[in-house]
Amino acid sequence: MQDMVRVAVDAMGGDNAPDEIIKGTVEAVNSQQNIFCYLVGKKEVIEPCLQAYSYPKERIEVVHASEKIETAEPPVNAIRKKKDSSIVVALKMVKEGKADAFVSAGSSGAVLVGGQVIVGKIKGIERAPLAPLIPTEKGMSLLIDCGANVDARASHLVQFAQMGTIYMEGVMGISNPTVAIVNIGTEEEKGNALVKETFPLLKECDGINFVGNIEAREIPHGGADVIVCEAFTGNVILKLYEGIGSVMLGAIKKGLMATLKSKIGALLIKSSLKSTMKQFDASQYGGAPLLGLKGLVVKTHGSSKAKEVKNSIIQCQTFKAQDINAKIKEQLGKE
Amino acid sequence: MQDMVRVAVDAMGGDNAPDEIIKGTVEAVNSQQNIFCYLVGKKEVIEPCLQAYSYPKERIEVVHASEKIETAEPPVNAIRKKKDSSIVVALKMVKEGKADAFVSAGSSGAVLVGGQVIVGKIKGIERAPLAPLIPTEKGMSLLIDCGANVDARASHLVQFAQMGTIYMEGVMGISNPTVAIVNIGTEEEKGNALVKETFPLLKECDGINFVGNIEAREIPHGGADVIVCEAFTGNVILKLYEGIGSVMLGAIKKGLMATLKSKIGALLIKSSLKSTMKQFDASQYGGAPLLGLKGLVVKTHGSSKAKEVKNSIIQCQTFKAQDINAKIKEQLGKE
Repeated sequence: MQDMVRVAVDAMGGDNAPDEIIKGTVEAVNSQQNIFCYLVGKKEVIEPCLQAYSYPKERIEVVHASEKIETAEPPVNAIRKKKDSSIVVALKMVKEGKADAFVSAGSSGAVLVGGQVIVGKIKGIERAPLAPLIPTEKGMSLLIDCGANVDARASHLVQFAQMGTIYMEGVMGISNPTVAIVNIGTEEEKGNALVKETFPLLKECDGINFVGNIEAREIPHGGADVIVCEAFTGNVILKLYEGIGSVMLGAIKKGLMATLKSKIGALLIKSSLKSTMKQFDASQYGGAPLLGLKGLVVKTHGSSKAKEVKNSIIQCQTFKAQDINAKIKEQLGKE
Repeated sequence: MQDMVRVAVDAMGGDNAPDEIIKGTVEAVNSQQNIFCYLVGKKEVIEPCLQAYSYPKERIEVVHASEKIETAEPPVNAIRKKKDSSIVVALKMVKEGKADAFVSAGSSGAVLVGGQVIVGKIKGIERAPLAPLIPTEKGMSLLIDCGANVDARASHLVQFAQMGTIYMEGVMGISNPTVAIVNIGTEEEKGNALVKETFPLLKECDGINFVGNIEAREIPHGGADVIVCEAFTGNVILKLYEGIGSVMLGAIKKGLMATLKSKIGALLIKSSLKSTMKQFDASQYGGAPLLGLKGLVVKTHGSSKAKEVKNSIIQCQTFKAQDINAKIKEQLGKE
C-alpha cells in the first residue's frame, strides 16, 4: 500500500448519502489504480448498497461508525458528544495516519470544527481556511476563506494568501499565481478596517504575487488566481455564485419554452448550452480543502452526487503527491 | 410649477457624459408632463449638445458649473475644494429647495459624501445608506446598504431595515415587505459579530416584517423584499451580480456561435433570450437612492446610458409623490 492514497469517505454525510457517496467512491476506485477508500458509517447501511457494484474488493473497506452528525446540530457539541459518528471516526483515522485524507459531504460546521480539533492545525497556522475553486471566464480561481470562522484578523488573511499560493502552484499547476484581496474599490486606500490593515501586509509579504484589490465584479472574469477574503465575505461570494447561476439558467430554460419558434431553437442549441453551463459547474473540481491542517480534509457540497464525490477523492492524489501540507509547514510552520 | 418635480441632473458625471445624460434628460421630460430638469455642468458643453433635440424648452434649464469631479479623486477633498463642480452646485440646489432631487452617474464617493455633507441627513438618522434595487426571480429586492460607509454598527442596520421598508412600501407599492439580514446560515446563532448583535434588535423592531437570516444563495431567488447588510457585503453582492451576469451571458453567446446547428438555433431563440436577460437588467429600475437625507439624491451606475438616466429621473416622481423623506422623518427622525 506504499503508493496508495488512502481516503476515508464519510458514507453518511450529505443530502444524497449513502447511495451517491458509495457510488462515487466505487467510481473513484475503479478509475484510479492507486486509490484505497475506507467507507465510514453504518455497516448495515453501507454493505447492502456496496454489493450492487463491481470493484476491486481489496481497495474498499467498510469501517463501522454507529452515529451520524446532522447538519442542523451545533458542530462543537456534535464533535464532542458523537464519538462514534462517521465524521469523528474518519477524522481520527487521518490523525492516526491510517488515512491520508478525509472526504465529506456532511455538516460543514462539524467537518471544519472536527478538522481543527481532531486532526489539528500545523503549528504556526493561526486559522485553517476552507478554500473552494470557483469557475471563471478564464478557468478557475481559489476563493479563500469560505469557512465558518468569521471575523478574521489581518494576520489570518496573510496566511490565507500564502497557503492559497502553495495550493494553486502545487495542485493546480499555476506558476506564480496572482493574489488579490476582495475590496469595494481598486484603490489602496479603500475598504473596511480589516482590508485596510491587511493590504500593506500583503504588499510586503514575500513569496506571493500580490496584485492588489479586486472588486467582486472582476471575480467571475478571472481577475486573480487566489482571491483572499474573510470567511463571511467568502461565504457570500460562493453562495451568490450558486444562486445567480441557478436562477439565470432556470430563467433561460423557461424563456426557451415560451414560443414554438424558441422551442425549436432550444433543440438546436441544447448541446451547446449544456457545454457552456458545464464550464460554470463547480462540481468538476471536486471539493474544497481545509488548508493548514496536519492531514487532508476535503469538504464537498452537501448536495454532492457521485461525480463530485469521485472528483473529490481523486483530487486527494495530487494533494498527497505534491505534499502540500509539507510545503505549508515548511513555509509557514513554526517548530 | 406647483406639481412639478424639479430634478437637478449631473450633466458631467459618468462614462457616457454628457451625451447620454442629456439624451436621457430630454427623454424624461418628453415622456412626463410634470418633470422639470436642471442640467448642471459646463454650459459650453451642454448647450450645443442640447440643441440637437426637440423638447419643451420651458422644462429644461442649463445651470453652469465650471468644474468636474473625476471618479478617481478622493471624495472628501473633491467636495471641499471643487465648489463650482456639477455635483456640489446641484447638491446645493437640493439643499436650498431649488430642486427636489439630484441624479448623478458621476463619482459614487463624491455623491455619497456630498449628499451627507451638503444636503445633510435627517436628524436622528445615523447613516445614509445607498439602496439599489436588484433583479430577482420574483421581481426585485432592495439591497441596503451598498454605499461607501463600511464598518457599520448594529443600530445603523436596524435603521436600514426601517428605511428600506418605507421605500419598498411607498415607492414600489409592496405592502408589509419582508426584511432579512444577509448571513452565512439561516440559524439565529450563526454569523459574524455584527450580524449576531443586529439579529435580536431586528427581531424586536416594530413596524418591520423581519423574516430572519438570508443566505446569499437565496437573494437571486427573491428570498426577501428588503435585504439588509453592511456596505462592504452589499457592495460585494451588487458587483458580483453584475459580474456573473455579464460573464454567463458572454459565455452563452460564445457557445451559440460554436457550430452551424447552434447558430441556426441562436437565430430562433434570440428574442426569447433577449427578453429573459431583460428581466435581469437592473437598469430598468433607474438609480439607487441615498436614503435618510433631507432631499432626494439618486446615484445611477457610472456606465449609465440614456435609458437609465431617464428612468432615474422618472423615479424621482414617485419618491416625491409618496413623500418618502417625510415618512422617514416621521418614523425615525428626532426633533
